[in-house]
Amino acid sequence: MEKFDFTEHSHRRYNPLTGEWILVSPHRTKRPWQGKVEKDNQEKRPEYDPKCYLCPGNERAGGVSNPNYESTYVFKNDFSALIPDVPGGEFSDGELFYAKSEQGLCKVICFSPRHDLTIPEMKTENIKNVIDVWQNEYKELGRLDFVNYVQIFENKGDIMGCSNPHPHGQIWSQNAVPTEPAKEQEKQKAYFDKHGRTLLSDYLTRELELKERILVENDHFVALIPFWATWPFEAMILSKRAASDISQLTEDEKMAFADCYKKLTVMYDNLFETSFPYSAGLHQAPTDGQEHPEWHLHMHFYPPLLRSATVKKFMVGYEMMANPQRDITAEQSADRLRNLPDTHYKLND
Amino acid sequence: MEKFDFTEHSHRRYNPLTGEWILVSPHRTKRPWQGKVEKDNQEKRPEYDPKCYLCPGNERAGGVSNPNYESTYVFKNDFSALIPDVPGGEFSDGELFYAKSEQGLCKVICFSPRHDLTIPEMKTENIKNVIDVWQNEYKELGRLDFVNYVQIFENKGDIMGCSNPHPHGQIWSQNAVPTEPAKEQEKQKAYFDKHGRTLLSDYLTRELELKERILVENDHFVALIPFWATWPFEAMILSKRAASDISQLTEDEKMAFADCYKKLTVMYDNLFETSFPYSAGLHQAPTDGQEHPEWHLHMHFYPPLLRSATVKKFMVGYEMMANPQRDITAEQSADRLRNLPDTHYKLND
Ligand SMILES: O=P(O)(O)O[C@H]1O[C@H](CO)[C@@H](O)[C@H](O)[C@H]1O
Ligand SMILES: O=P(O)(O)O[C@H]1O[C@H](CO)[C@@H](O)[C@H](O)[C@H]1O
Repeated sequence: MEKFDFTEHSHRRYNPLTGEWILVSPHRTKRPWQGKVEKDNQEKRPEYDPKCYLCPGNERAGGVSNPNYESTYVFKNDFSALIPDVPGGEFSDGELFYAKSEQGLCKVICFSPRHDLTIPEMKTENIKNVIDVWQNEYKELGRLDFVNYVQIFENKGDIMGCSNPHPHGQIWSQNAVPTEPAKEQEKQKAYFDKHGRTLLSDYLTRELELKERILVENDHFVALIPFWATWPFEAMILSKRAASDISQLTEDEKMAFADCYKKLTVMYDNLFETSFPYSAGLHQAPTDGQEHPEWHLHMHFYPPLLRSATVKKFMVGYEMMANPQRDITAEQSADRLRNLPDTHYKLND
Repeated sequence: MEKFDFTEHSHRRYNPLTGEWILVSPHRTKRPWQGKVEKDNQEKRPEYDPKCYLCPGNERAGGVSNPNYESTYVFKNDFSALIPDVPGGEFSDGELFYAKSEQGLCKVICFSPRHDLTIPEMKTENIKNVIDVWQNEYKELGRLDFVNYVQIFENKGDIMGCSNPHPHGQIWSQNAVPTEPAKEQEKQKAYFDKHGRTLLSDYLTRELELKERILVENDHFVALIPFWATWPFEAMILSKRAASDISQLTEDEKMAFADCYKKLTVMYDNLFETSFPYSAGLHQAPTDGQEHPEWHLHMHFYPPLLRSATVKKFMVGYEMMANPQRDITAEQSADRLRNLPDTHYKLND
């Protein structure tokens, strides 16, 4: 009988960061699509939009006005899902009903005063300003005694639930360590205890030898498609040094992070010549006052598009009930992204 | 200080079936929505569509024609993600790169010959035919020696990745037990070993006393909003008797299941007077030849709509990186659904 070859045959891949699996069906890339087609929102935006509540000087919900900021701007989310002012306590009724009150603080970060830009269109030094803010907020929020975990993320594009195209991200900080980082912590801890090195250092060493899934590499950071990627063009940015959180990054390292962030998102935009939607977020050590040598700072990118600016991958029935599924392999995705021009497609007009 | 009250204060709820958490922010239901608005696909469909590849007598991909079926119709998926003909084997490179070949078989089930119907518009006895097919397929597929798990599911509506409005569902059967049922198995096993009863029997007993989250109850089945629901109107149908899988259901029980399925989906359609999209799926014992007294058959419904036929909940940045989040509580959702008229809104025209 034929030998198993994962470029051709259905298989499952194991995600060592979470302990979960994905199903890969490489033979199925020829499936026709007759379903939902998204709108491709390519209309040109003005540099300043008087009706945008994130633009400098404009009024937000509740009557507050933004300052005339010139670089980045952070403020408390006007519709925070987590607030500090929640009485402690829990509710339980046997072992099957359990709830616990949760304190937190949510912020919004405008990446740039310019309404018409996105990360791939910003200058690397301006992206570094965003990373400076992340570093600062991680430290400041992490110091609050009711904050044990700081989740920094960006929803980009209306199909990713982003309600305003002005370039911005969010930070939700809270008492508990949420489910996803808790899974990664458990796996990273077990690995570190066994090997004395972080799981992601050993993983990165091998990826840098293989070169099959690497997208961008500079002195301090790498962008790659993880072996266990679930979204069609899912990627990860990670630090070469095993920094457990963003507070440890030097100026040079932050610049290198910005460089990877820009280069990856330019690839994304160039893939279908559209402003590529995604949710992205940092995973790093909890701010619980403990040492976390097992943690290795990284940023996940989960982009939904599958084969054009208007056809996305649906993570629905099978994926929700069983586990995520993809057709194109991680290696094929890496190949496609890597072979795109370096210059943002809009600059070629 | 004020006392913690989960109808008002931010909190996390624990899901004892998976061991994961969700964040609930009841204070935030007043948030305005300026983001993406979906199309409400309310156009009337014909009973038979000559261009639909699922209608009786029509041609499918690859030139096969459907028979002139009069009740339900099952066939092998023309674009199966899982196929039987895959060489066994695995790939590994240290402990961080691991893939395993996966065999399986995928089927499609047309629920009715009528192109214009959906489950809530079908007669209960015709819904029972669908459940008969599920029972039969679970047994038949489960008997194949390369099948250890049978995932029955339905994607309804184009926003749930459904590419054809003809009422249909799918079955993906495979070698491995996927991630989600594996989590539920672990938790159900631990509970059963400790108490000698299934986790869901004890859960259901308490829910039937509390009555707060019950939507439908008949002699053999119940539909409810789980205490730990993540989607705004997420629901679960479960058997009163601790049947570990659908093969064990009697004729009366299948009729009772169909009754719950219909009544729940009529509530759903009536909520926003639209054909309510969702992904739904059965969770039940693996077909691995072992006894599974810990398993308790149930069906999950994950509907995306939030506050109208066109505004959905996005499970994006925070939810993907941290854990799911909702605003409206499970109890508020149950209240709203329970207080809707019993008759399908289309029958009131
Ligand atoms: O098989 P279908 O209906 O074409 O495809 C749909 O359901 C599948 C199973 O949930 C998903 O993998 C696909 O992304 C979705 O579009
Ligand atoms: O806070 P926003 O941008 O209004 O909301 C968006 O991001 C949040 C965090 O991922 C999600 O909970 C919302 O569903 C989404 O629409």
